[in-house]
Amino acid sequence: MSRKNVIVAQSGGPTAAINASLAGVIDAVLQSDDYETVYGSIYGILGIMENRLMNLNEKAAENPDFIRLLKTSPAMYLGSCRYKLPDEEADEAAYAQLFAQFEAYQVGAFFYIGGNDSMDTVLKLGRYGNKIGSSIRFIGIPKTIDNDLCVTDHTPGYGSAAKYVASSLLEVAHDTFIYSVKSVTIVEIMGRDAGWLTAASALARTSYSSAPHLIYLPEVPFEKERFLADVREQLAQRNNVIIAVSEGIRDKDGTYISATAAKEDQFGHSQLSGTGKCLEYLVKDAINVKVRSIELNVLQRCASHIASLTDLDEAYALGKQAVSYASQGQSQCMLTLRRVSGKPYQTGIETADINGIANEAKSIPREWINEAGNDITQELYDYMAPLIVGEPALSYKNGLPVYLPISHLDTQE
Amino acid sequence: MSRKNVIVAQSGGPTAAINASLAGVIDAVLQSDDYETVYGSIYGILGIMENRLMNLNEKAAENPDFIRLLKTSPAMYLGSCRYKLPDEEADEAAYAQLFAQFEAYQVGAFFYIGGNDSMDTVLKLGRYGNKIGSSIRFIGIPKTIDNDLCVTDHTPGYGSAAKYVASSLLEVAHDTFIYSVKSVTIVEIMGRDAGWLTAASALARTSYSSAPHLIYLPEVPFEKERFLADVREQLAQRNNVIIAVSEGIRDKDGTYISATAAKEDQFGHSQLSGTGKCLEYLVKDAINVKVRSIELNVLQRCASHIASLTDLDEAYALGKQAVSYASQGQSQCMLTLRRVSGKPYQTGIETADINGIANEAKSIPREWINEAGNDITQELYDYMAPLIVGEPALSYKNGLPVYLPISHLDTQE
Repeated sequence: MSRKNVIVAQSGGPTAAINASLAGVIDAVLQSDDYETVYGSIYGILGIMENRLMNLNEKAAENPDFIRLLKTSPAMYLGSCRYKLPDEEADEAAYAQLFAQFEAYQVGAFFYIGGNDSMDTVLKLGRYGNKIGSSIRFIGIPKTIDNDLCVTDHTPGYGSAAKYVASSLLEVAHDTFIYSVKSVTIVEIMGRDAGWLTAASALARTSYSSAPHLIYLPEVPFEKERFLADVREQLAQRNNVIIAVSEGIRDKDGTYISATAAKEDQFGHSQLSGTGKCLEYLVKDAINVKVRSIELNVLQRCASHIASLTDLDEAYALGKQAVSYASQGQSQCMLTLRRVSGKPYQTGIETADINGIANEAKSIPREWINEAGNDITQELYDYMAPLIVGEPALSYKNGLPVYLPISHLDTQE
Repeated sequence: MSRKNVIVAQSGGPTAAINASLAGVIDAVLQSDDYETVYGSIYGILGIMENRLMNLNEKAAENPDFIRLLKTSPAMYLGSCRYKLPDEEADEAAYAQLFAQFEAYQVGAFFYIGGNDSMDTVLKLGRYGNKIGSSIRFIGIPKTIDNDLCVTDHTPGYGSAAKYVASSLLEVAHDTFIYSVKSVTIVEIMGRDAGWLTAASALARTSYSSAPHLIYLPEVPFEKERFLADVREQLAQRNNVIIAVSEGIRDKDGTYISATAAKEDQFGHSQLSGTGKCLEYLVKDAINVKVRSIELNVLQRCASHIASLTDLDEAYALGKQAVSYASQGQSQCMLTLRRVSGKPYQTGIETADINGIANEAKSIPREWINEAGNDITQELYDYMAPLIVGEPALSYKNGLPVYLPISHLDTQE
């Protein structure tokens, strides 16, 4: 019996680890007895529909550094999409087209590396496959800097983003502590609905710096007066107060703080008011102190130059294991990480039914946040700490990190 | 004759290289036949006035890693100040107090590591010293991420900031290029009056990415219509347009673009409108395309985890040489870097009269900007390129870069 081929695609927002999972899939197929060629679909699942498929065996053969560079390059080598597969009842034609392509390319397995929406796609393709009696395996490989996927202990991409946040916070502390003038610095961190990434700011604490001194997460309703009291209390204790805040903090009615301020201030453009800016003005108006806010930007998700080796290694292992599981007949599942041991840190790879994962989100448990709602507990610290450990070996050329170009860049630029 | 002591202080805004110059001064004093003890003044020159002086020989003796860690730690180990020494005529008491301290500590030389304002202090202390017949040497060691000091080929701190800007721009390009949807990304970079740091974004260009596709600098008057035409032209050529813009761009009347937009939009808080945000709304209103703006934050000046080794080595060498020059009797001067050769890159250290430097600023020459005023020339590229080369050996602990705590942090935290 001749070997089948596989298709792999990437979807959703970038992370520093999503290419490591792709590298794992490619490596596993190259060594597989069951699968022959791994095709990469350009721009997520859209690449299958638009017949933009790239032979990744050839790419790996052409360039001896391909896998190594892929593992440490940011964002998505194959490009991404924000396409949500319609329900089968609404548009069966999309499914028919996709499965026709699977047949044309003699596909035995499809791997989708992504977050919530990508898992929804895996779920729907699996259901349709069952219906038509297809033997294709559909497997999801998780990634998201938000760390909000259910069942898995954590998600690839989170550790690297957490490391960027913690390192940045530490450097901001150094930047701030040099002045004797009292000041408040507010650092806004990504995370609309879950505070995992903002919580990672606590990993910046060292023997000499307890910054961030306050941490506000979307999991706890935000109260302005309480916040100002917290800031005043901190200012009584130290010169330079550093605050980490999630972009997604909300008041007790569920209204985003940024939205409130935008309305209050009568701005035309509500996007102008980032959450950090809102808190900056709140402090400025109420307390006579130097204040500034800093919005950590998209580098949170793509700063491969300070990625976590633990994160990249796990992402790679998940990609590799996904191919084994497909060989063994698993389908309609997402790979998960299970923490076997905290100290020493050790994880194992398992699978979980995609039904319990797609379209669900995981918040920080309330008991991992302190009672006052302005800091995290030691338990959460211990959960996060091992995820940022280790530095990948990066090459630099002319002072710039060497990355693999995104696959379609040659033609685009 | 017994050896004299020296005082060293740091002032102005942080850079990733200013501690390397401090390390150079300390190392040189420890090896000097002319000087015995190096005292660090806490919070710039204010530390002398307030008698907050730290024996740095002891610090180096206590910790065998002190110099190595100091060389690669961000911001200022000694703390900073924004204090401008009053004119002698206005407040001679300040001078009398400072020189009394110099006598009390048997000071033979004072080194001030800083930018423009610090050089002004060196100038004034030197003048007063001359007047009272003091033999103390006053020497300035340059630093500023803005690269706007005169006479010197470039300033320590600039290379590391430039490397951060270029690496970030490259990672933003990877982040942006993954989508097939047309988009414009505007990256706002520090530099109120000079465009050197924004120009460094051009160093992000690689064989596969020509981003940034447009660069706007304060040296060229900004025209909104021209800008929109540039953006439209770029969008016709490629999917994802990336623009680097200096925070300090102004229109032909010298009005900051951010200030104009703040007025036009009737915002209460003009600080809300960063330059990048203004251009974002300009594009949003005029062109039907996805737009976002990113403000590179203070990490531009304190991201030691991606510092330039060339920069750190030069900063260290300047600190070391400053002590030699003081021994040789030089005073009222600032150390400068002269480019001996471009390829291979080679610099020498010289001194320049502080009179021609303090309170002057250096802009990018117009001929190093293209005629259209939306990009730089090859000559400027070649000038900047060697400055970001090389990566210092950093240690990491628990996933965080290991830095030397700022000297006063133990008590503060």
